[in-house]
Amino acid sequence: MSRAKRKDADPIAFQGARGAFSEQAVRQLLGPEPPVLPCERFEDAFRAVKEGHAAGAVIPIENTLAGSVYENYDHLLNFELPIVAETSVRIVHNLIAAEGVTFGKIKRVFSHPVALNQCLDFFRNHPNIERIPHYDTAGSVKMVVEEKLADAAGIASAVAAEIYGGRILRKSIEDDRQNFTRFFLLRTPEYARRHPWPAPADGAWKTSLVFSTRNVPGSLFRALSAFALRDLNLAKIQSRPLRGKPWEYLFYMDFWGQVDAPNAQNALHHLGELADFMRVLGCYPKGA
Amino acid sequence: MSRAKRKDADPIAFQGARGAFSEQAVRQLLGPEPPVLPCERFEDAFRAVKEGHAAGAVIPIENTLAGSVYENYDHLLNFELPIVAETSVRIVHNLIAAEGVTFGKIKRVFSHPVALNQCLDFFRNHPNIERIPHYDTAGSVKMVVEEKLADAAGIASAVAAEIYGGRILRKSIEDDRQNFTRFFLLRTPEYARRHPWPAPADGAWKTSLVFSTRNVPGSLFRALSAFALRDLNLAKIQSRPLRGKPWEYLFYMDFWGQVDAPNAQNALHHLGELADFMRVLGCYPKGA
Repeated sequence: MSRAKRKDADPIAFQGARGAFSEQAVRQLLGPEPPVLPCERFEDAFRAVKEGHAAGAVIPIENTLAGSVYENYDHLLNFELPIVAETSVRIVHNLIAAEGVTFGKIKRVFSHPVALNQCLDFFRNHPNIERIPHYDTAGSVKMVVEEKLADAAGIASAVAAEIYGGRILRKSIEDDRQNFTRFFLLRTPEYARRHPWPAPADGAWKTSLVFSTRNVPGSLFRALSAFALRDLNLAKIQSRPLRGKPWEYLFYMDFWGQVDAPNAQNALHHLGELADFMRVLGCYPKGA
Repeated sequence: MSRAKRKDADPIAFQGARGAFSEQAVRQLLGPEPPVLPCERFEDAFRAVKEGHAAGAVIPIENTLAGSVYENYDHLLNFELPIVAETSVRIVHNLIAAEGVTFGKIKRVFSHPVALNQCLDFFRNHPNIERIPHYDTAGSVKMVVEEKLADAAGIASAVAAEIYGGRILRKSIEDDRQNFTRFFLLRTPEYARRHPWPAPADGAWKTSLVFSTRNVPGSLFRALSAFALRDLNLAKIQSRPLRGKPWEYLFYMDFWGQVDAPNAQNALHHLGELADFMRVLGCYPKGA
């Protein structure tokens, strides 16, 4: 019953608890309506879409401090769910407590250790506040609100405060404001075909692909010629050693362009001649 | 007194607590002798070397699941400490308890949430064991051993068991054995000059560099020509958008070769003509 209901309501899967930054990405991409399906692992979110329990998944692919999430590139290859949109979320950490709790009363702050470590200046300025690791950012807010802790707060997104009814005591206490995470929206191939994403007004499409070459000198140079010779501009390139094949590499690449445009098709055909393996992961409008 | 002693004893700085995987990297690179200086932030480890409180720093630069640690590339640029060696550590998670505690008694397991989440199969197979987030992997072992917890264990490296006198109850409980982190050893430029790292027997040197180009079509293609035309083989390439300059990119590159060899010097000179900015981050033997 609950599964059938879920399926009808078309939830969007993401990894983490309700109120995680991934849920903020869902809202940026799809607005307030779609229900969500929080998952324990990234793989679970991909599987939920593949098996029809979710209408899509929103997954982080790159962070400005921590780099690319290789694991999710692996899942993109294995699950073959096309990327249909992207967005960037600024990682803003807020100090959030139960209703009625004021800042002066806070003695303990719970959050995921990564979030606690991104707010070190705040804790240096408030040396009497104890830091306590918690399972995740949003979960720390859920806990302090549900247990009505009078001397404690959590650190999480503004969405978490909204969902759990917490009150934001201090906004944006992170050390580094240049902390952004880029997310992809994935659908099934069928869904993507039936519901094409609206074309961007400025024509700024991106196409993501993965390819591999044997690591002979100049192999990447030759592969890039497929794009350079057609004036196609790269937005990202990243090499990754292939497991168990120390001299072979996967490359993740984003280029500016619509995948069906003639020059993109010609470039991909040319790359196909040069690469051992190639797959387009998706084509989507440049995100906000 | 303690600072003077530290300085004399030439500690190696790293981010994390004693027994962190970074300390295992220190041992792989430098053996059992050097004392270590655990630091709260990556930046603190760089600063310790720069200011002479440490003889070197060992920092993670890339993980096979989580990707490149962009933050440390930033610090490499800002602190100008040369890379003199690299090594890879397999991230092996062990279940570690106080002496005398047997596996059957374990009801609670403490560790960093990232480590807990990398051992999900273990927890699925032992559903009665509760997972509790802790500040870091090694710190969880320190706590269960010092407090002689009779029903609890931590998850951490084998080095953590050694340091805190814990007993390994289960080895290698991580879900994915292909989890490796690559570390760099950094020195001051003066130290690197006075104590050159021994040349590798197989002649397998790597050189790491960073450069930027304006993102006009083909700019990376032209930059790579500097290497391809001299048969220099790439080991890594990664683009990263420049902060506040949406159309400009930094590239991190490793190529196979000794930086002072004539073809490497020619390639770097050629790249210097094409790039807006370029800096060699270090030259070091291929790591284990």
